[in-house]
Amino acid sequence: MIKDEINWSILLLLQQNARLTNAEIGRRVGLSSPAVTERIKKMEDLGVIKGYAANIDHRATGHQLKAIVTLKVFSGRLKPFLEIVRGFKEVVNCYRITGVENIIMEVILFDQNHLEEFIDKVIQYGETRTHIILSNVVENREIQRNTRKRV
Amino acid sequence: MIKDEINWSILLLLQQNARLTNAEIGRRVGLSSPAVTERIKKMEDLGVIKGYAANIDHRATGHQLKAIVTLKVFSGRLKPFLEIVRGFKEVVNCYRITGVENIIMEVILFDQNHLEEFIDKVIQYGETRTHIILSNVVENREIQRNTRKRV
Amino acid sequence: MIKDEINWSILLLLQQNARLTNAEIGRRVGLSSPAVTERIKKMEDLGVIKGYAANIDHRATGHQLKAIVTLKVFSGRLKPFLEIVRGFKEVVNCYRITGVENIIMEVILFDQNHLEEFIDKVIQYGETRTHIILSNVVENREIQRNTRKRV
Amino acid sequence: MIKDEINWSILLLLQQNARLTNAEIGRRVGLSSPAVTERIKKMEDLGVIKGYAANIDHRATGHQLKAIVTLKVFSGRLKPFLEIVRGFKEVVNCYRITGVENIIMEVILFDQNHLEEFIDKVIQYGETRTHIILSNVVENREIQRNTRKRV
Amino acid sequence: MIKDEINWSILLLLQQNARLTNAEIGRRVGLSSPAVTERIKKMEDLGVIKGYAANIDHRATGHQLKAIVTLKVFSGRLKPFLEIVRGFKEVVNCYRITGVENIIMEVILFDQNHLEEFIDKVIQYGETRTHIILSNVVENREIQRNTRKRV
Amino acid sequence: MIKDEINWSILLLLQQNARLTNAEIGRRVGLSSPAVTERIKKMEDLGVIKGYAANIDHRATGHQLKAIVTLKVFSGRLKPFLEIVRGFKEVVNCYRITGVENIIMEVILFDQNHLEEFIDKVIQYGETRTHIILSNVVENREIQRNTRKRV
Amino acid sequence: MIKDEINWSILLLLQQNARLTNAEIGRRVGLSSPAVTERIKKMEDLGVIKGYAANIDHRATGHQLKAIVTLKVFSGRLKPFLEIVRGFKEVVNCYRITGVENIIMEVILFDQNHLEEFIDKVIQYGETRTHIILSNVVENREIQRNTRKRV
Amino acid sequence: MIKDEINWSILLLLQQNARLTNAEIGRRVGLSSPAVTERIKKMEDLGVIKGYAANIDHRATGHQLKAIVTLKVFSGRLKPFLEIVRGFKEVVNCYRITGVENIIMEVILFDQNHLEEFIDKVIQYGETRTHIILSNVVENREIQRNTRKRV
Repeated sequence: MIKDEINWSILLLLQQNARLTNAEIGRRVGLSSPAVTERIKKMEDLGVIKGYAANIDHRATGHQLKAIVTLKVFSGRLKPFLEIVRGFKEVVNCYRITGVENIIMEVILFDQNHLEEFIDKVIQYGETRTHIILSNVVENREIQRNTRKRV
Repeated sequence: MIKDEINWSILLLLQQNARLTNAEIGRRVGLSSPAVTERIKKMEDLGVIKGYAANIDHRATGHQLKAIVTLKVFSGRLKPFLEIVRGFKEVVNCYRITGVENIIMEVILFDQNHLEEFIDKVIQYGETRTHIILSNVVENREIQRNTRKRV
Repeated sequence: MIKDEINWSILLLLQQNARLTNAEIGRRVGLSSPAVTERIKKMEDLGVIKGYAANIDHRATGHQLKAIVTLKVFSGRLKPFLEIVRGFKEVVNCYRITGVENIIMEVILFDQNHLEEFIDKVIQYGETRTHIILSNVVENREIQRNTRKRV
Repeated sequence: MIKDEINWSILLLLQQNARLTNAEIGRRVGLSSPAVTERIKKMEDLGVIKGYAANIDHRATGHQLKAIVTLKVFSGRLKPFLEIVRGFKEVVNCYRITGVENIIMEVILFDQNHLEEFIDKVIQYGETRTHIILSNVVENREIQRNTRKRV
Repeated sequence: MIKDEINWSILLLLQQNARLTNAEIGRRVGLSSPAVTERIKKMEDLGVIKGYAANIDHRATGHQLKAIVTLKVFSGRLKPFLEIVRGFKEVVNCYRITGVENIIMEVILFDQNHLEEFIDKVIQYGETRTHIILSNVVENREIQRNTRKRV
Repeated sequence: MIKDEINWSILLLLQQNARLTNAEIGRRVGLSSPAVTERIKKMEDLGVIKGYAANIDHRATGHQLKAIVTLKVFSGRLKPFLEIVRGFKEVVNCYRITGVENIIMEVILFDQNHLEEFIDKVIQYGETRTHIILSNVVENREIQRNTRKRV
Repeated sequence: MIKDEINWSILLLLQQNARLTNAEIGRRVGLSSPAVTERIKKMEDLGVIKGYAANIDHRATGHQLKAIVTLKVFSGRLKPFLEIVRGFKEVVNCYRITGVENIIMEVILFDQNHLEEFIDKVIQYGETRTHIILSNVVENREIQRNTRKRV
Repeated sequence: MIKDEINWSILLLLQQNARLTNAEIGRRVGLSSPAVTERIKKMEDLGVIKGYAANIDHRATGHQLKAIVTLKVFSGRLKPFLEIVRGFKEVVNCYRITGVENIIMEVILFDQNHLEEFIDKVIQYGETRTHIILSNVVENREIQRNTRKRV
């Protein structure tokens, strides 16, 4: 667990804008650029930071629909599905969860035909439910230091 | 819609590692650093790129549980909820979706007590279901160019 | 109940192509044009024929989505809803049905934003479920004479 | 997409009464009959107009019941069902939709025995739910020009 | 509990045909008619026999539909409903049961309009589900002596 | 359909007390005993009257529990179940109904062990739900003449 | 059934603190220690008392999560599951119940990985639902004498 | 967390038979009786051991039924219910859980009338589902040392 306050400041900055230079981060947290570099390197090595990603607007890339698709996997089909889903380009995120519907996916689709094609692939592994995303309310909020008082 | 092939290459690189320098990106796509800078700036201005974020491991920050929580909002309580959820630090992502359960949230929690506190806040707005995330199967996959043949 | 065989032939022709002229219908069923006119008039007056409609492709008119939306109406809100739904232009068909979800609608929508607007209007009357129509399998099949043997 | 205002007027008239003569349509939209003929022909060729159908009262043809029947198709039985349903005379409309219940049908039935026979045929392909239609609230509303202000 | 074997024989006969005369029953069980009268009287007084009823065919009395209707009663509406349902002529049997749908009724109806009227009355007390009865499989089977070996 | 008013009076009396003698029925409806006999015989022959049954208290016969058990029959198991259920002594009534749970049974049981044994037999044919009957609200109401005004 | 009042007092004391000595129990109920010993022995022999158990805090033994897991057992898999579940150390209690979800388990788990491992074992026998226990409201309440007035 | 192996042995013995004397426990784990007393006292003080209870057979105390009752608490009624349930003698265990049905209770009941009375009390706080317990499969299994290899 991250206990150092400066590390937390760096993490927060990188979650808000991953393209800040080390120099700029150093200015804001009061460290030299090499010191920042070293701290970031360490947090990457420890797996605290898993990566850095640009966040793209799916509509700007021609996708009319974004949806949550859940899957109630047929008995004995979970492992094959966990393999094949890694190759589905429509699937931006996929979690295994507790519950009867044991897979949840975030999917981007070009149009209604694309949705039908996607479901055709997936129904070989289980029963699907599709929820169209109407709007984003919170998106990629930064994980912050635990300042909550414990009972 | 992005039609330029080089822009797509830049987008792909930034989705894979948002901390690549413009010089490094230029080397890979065969452009000068200033040319890359300009193209990225333009895609940011057009809203194609919405931001850049470091991806943090929730366990490294002391969160024992990650869960999907859905909400079937009580009649007349949708608007107040959409306001207040923006202030809930546990909620990393929140979408409004179609279906009887019309809100879906990705939540990180310190422990079982934290889960109870979170549900106490949310049940004033609707009925909840909680699905513990058992494992990540696909995480933040890059959005790619549409190379699919249309029917 | 229609018992006359020629009337059934006329009904079938009008269900297949409502723009056939009476002369053309007469040729096919072996009647004069005025006789056809009279028989059709009579079936209209008796309410056997309720109308004639051109069938338009919703995509050709700029609607990206066609959906089935069901509504579980809140207690005491059924009558107001039955009034207001008549004014919703998105709703092509609407039935009251048995079951907990007691309203079913066929809806055409311009895009995802339009879907959100539509749901915003409807959730004041009840809980909704949205099923995107992936493809038409049977569309406006002709009602035919009862030739089934009864047990 | 239809952009011409006169074409929209013609489409509206044909949706309200598909048996209007071209001459009558011409009078109402201010065109000659041949001009109307040509415009309609063009919209038919482009697939904007898919057909014209008389709307028959199912009770006048001896059907006591009209129902919505949904089907949750068994794994591997979707394709065979999509074939065979085209031959079921009871099925007036049939859509493939998103959701666990992935087929929805509008069905007319002579009586309770006929309903049992129909379900006997269908349960070989999946699980059914039957919702009796109690009343029509909106029926075959005309698709209109998009005059909605976009956000 | 009935322990006498002759009483059980009488009960069985009366369940199969309640219009058998006491003399006829006596012949079959080897008792005099007055002895049968006395035994039956005693079982009536003890509440073992609650009554005798002719079983009428609902179709012969003009009812097109027989249905099971369940009700999930709104909070605070159970007692009023238990009162009013006694006056609903359509309701042949009504039980209070465990489960979220806490009332179950067997209902006979003249036609689809009658079904709509019935549901209009009932939805003031809760949410309904309607299951059309397709066929009787077992009807009013006789309760028999417990001959089952106990574990 | 029964149109004669006296026949309706006889039917009502027989539904209320099937052990009334023909003489007693005659006195009440103003007919001779042989005339009553003849009318009843005719209604039996026409199938209007299906039988006469004594109504026994299940608790008086040692049954602690009365329950509604529904069955969602496995694919291909409906016909075998419809055969075998006729031999289950616990099942007092059994209907085939519309819906995913397509069988509904009224069952009387000696105790909790008996319930387990019964479910063991039935789960070979489908999924069960059990609703304990808490109280009778309406029981075997008489079917009456249609005096309802039709819309 | 226990009718003796002193036995009831002993049972209550043993439910509250099973480690009371016989002498202490004797003092409280006004019996000699050997008399208490004899009464307890008898109730053990009759199966009234099934055992005595220390109640351990699962968190003190390193279990982060306590959950209710229900299972809808696949057709034909009930018996094998009833065998194997006896060997699952995570399962503190397990009942067979009525309903579609026919097994209910109380489970203690070290962490989220342990939960995934547990579900991996169980999904070979049926569909699972997982409900995290947020707090204990009533725990191991004593069974008391029936002092309720019967209707 | 308990790390000492002897303490684990004591805990196991006390879970299997809470009435073992300290002397007997000492013999089995190789400690003097006072040493056992001290260790147990310490684990009680730390809250590792929460209590000791005799396990009574509910049937021996005149309860015909044991059931799992879940409650979907009405909005705003959770706190009052958490208070009042502590006074319900039928409720042997009660947990607050995640999910739409947010309360789960283990209940023992004298008979069907008692079940109805209990449900009458509870439905003022929410919707109930009742699952009759058919048999115990695992009951009060001992919590054991974590010997599982961690991934």
